[in-house]
Amino acid sequence: MTQRTLSVALVQQRCGDDLKANLEASQQAVREAAAGGARLVVLQELHRSRYFCQTEDPAVFDLAEPVPGPSTESLGRLAAELDVVIVASLFERRAPGLYHNTAAVLDSDGSLAGRYRKMHIPDDPGYYEKFYFTPGDLGFEPIETRVGRLGILVCWDQWYPEAARLMAMAGAELLIYPTAIGWDERDTEEEKDRQRQAWTMIQRAHAIANGLPVLSCNRTGFEPNPNRAEPGIQFWGSSFIAGPQGELLAQASTDDETVLIADIDLGRTEEVRRLWPYFRDRRIDAYSDLTRRFRD
Amino acid sequence: MTQRTLSVALVQQRCGDDLKANLEASQQAVREAAAGGARLVVLQELHRSRYFCQTEDPAVFDLAEPVPGPSTESLGRLAAELDVVIVASLFERRAPGLYHNTAAVLDSDGSLAGRYRKMHIPDDPGYYEKFYFTPGDLGFEPIETRVGRLGILVCWDQWYPEAARLMAMAGAELLIYPTAIGWDERDTEEEKDRQRQAWTMIQRAHAIANGLPVLSCNRTGFEPNPNRAEPGIQFWGSSFIAGPQGELLAQASTDDETVLIADIDLGRTEEVRRLWPYFRDRRIDAYSDLTRRFRD
Repeated sequence: MTQRTLSVALVQQRCGDDLKANLEASQQAVREAAAGGARLVVLQELHRSRYFCQTEDPAVFDLAEPVPGPSTESLGRLAAELDVVIVASLFERRAPGLYHNTAAVLDSDGSLAGRYRKMHIPDDPGYYEKFYFTPGDLGFEPIETRVGRLGILVCWDQWYPEAARLMAMAGAELLIYPTAIGWDERDTEEEKDRQRQAWTMIQRAHAIANGLPVLSCNRTGFEPNPNRAEPGIQFWGSSFIAGPQGELLAQASTDDETVLIADIDLGRTEEVRRLWPYFRDRRIDAYSDLTRRFRD
Repeated sequence: MTQRTLSVALVQQRCGDDLKANLEASQQAVREAAAGGARLVVLQELHRSRYFCQTEDPAVFDLAEPVPGPSTESLGRLAAELDVVIVASLFERRAPGLYHNTAAVLDSDGSLAGRYRKMHIPDDPGYYEKFYFTPGDLGFEPIETRVGRLGILVCWDQWYPEAARLMAMAGAELLIYPTAIGWDERDTEEEKDRQRQAWTMIQRAHAIANGLPVLSCNRTGFEPNPNRAEPGIQFWGSSFIAGPQGELLAQASTDDETVLIADIDLGRTEEVRRLWPYFRDRRIDAYSDLTRRFRD
């Protein structure tokens, strides 16, 4: 089988209140990634701002922007200049009162290759996303780019094997998860460790189940809760790049801002799928209950 | 939430050519597990014999037995004597020319609580199961016992998130995988490590995705290939018990015969599912393609 090496980079960063500074830091990191040889650069979830879902505040919708819009234009110019594909994660304003958590892909000619609207929306203490984001209506469709067909999913999607499977079945060549997840300092160290390990493990398992590389890009740093009723979130970083057997190729630390670069071999997928031919044996005759809520 | 502790045991054993000796070793291990406090004892896949699927040989069908039959009678008596639930894994003869890879559950009163017929059947060099086993036709149904509703799946099923999800949706309280998987000595140490890690990881991920404990019971020891054309299989043991966040509670070594015992708290599932409410947010409106073979 033919080797097909792709150099990929994840930008794990801290975000502050200054939107312009956040974007400039992302852009600087993309330049660094390109200088390091990366052809595909993934930014973390909602990298333009602090993770604003710690509270429910109608004024926050002012942060939303159209797609295409200012961020995709700016990042598109950068993609073309550097000849890289950029996966951005934006707060999309689709219509007044209708907003999405959207990944936008800038192809290496600067054009908008496509978008994915986060399908699974969480809502937990400190992650009040159901207030802000309408669940995606574009389904699980890979985005065609000059470096391959990208299966982009966002954060909470990462806990759903169904999402990874559907992307793989639709022809994705790699799975990509922009993410914002962290710790509540009131949890014990043991609980924190279980959570971070579970997060890594389930995404590596999507690589295994589907024979695809997985790129997961998380934010880092502490962000206080604007309400001060809650302690805020310590984002746990740990962004990683895994191969199609789930093997770790590179992983960032929990605390450092990082441009994490690794080479992946897209040709390895067929090799692995010949050894572990899960797609051959799926019992599609017995899976119809997967579209039910529960069996009771 | 109420704690509901269940002591469980996995019997990781070597098998030889002597069927009677294999069964006696299993029974001895069940006694040891019960003496150690276990109320649920899981035997490895096809524990009555060597893993016979290394070759395709019509004479091997002589090993098959009816269910209920001699093995379930013998293990049922033991279950009643010791007041434990036993998960057995048998080569079921259903009709002349129709055989299954079947898990049979003996309840603690000695009765046959139910059976699960392996749904996903592998076929890879050294694992010629499609020759021997008709794919299961009982679907993904938990088996009700005095210690809980057991979601039993077998070996190759463990690579399918669909199977784990369907068992969880049908009300399983724990997932149980009798297994026979090992290394080909011709593989590099790195490849062997990737395989064993992937095997552990994907099953722990089923625990995470579904908020359920996972018990995986693998055989150990080297079994030569009767044809001598292939080098045989070094079964990698590593049987483990994981909690509903995927955390390892106990794991056996690769090489030792072990009765692995741990306490699991069945009450923890609801606690975990309140923190990580994946079932709430499944996009069942967008999952219908899961019953397709592929999207092309």
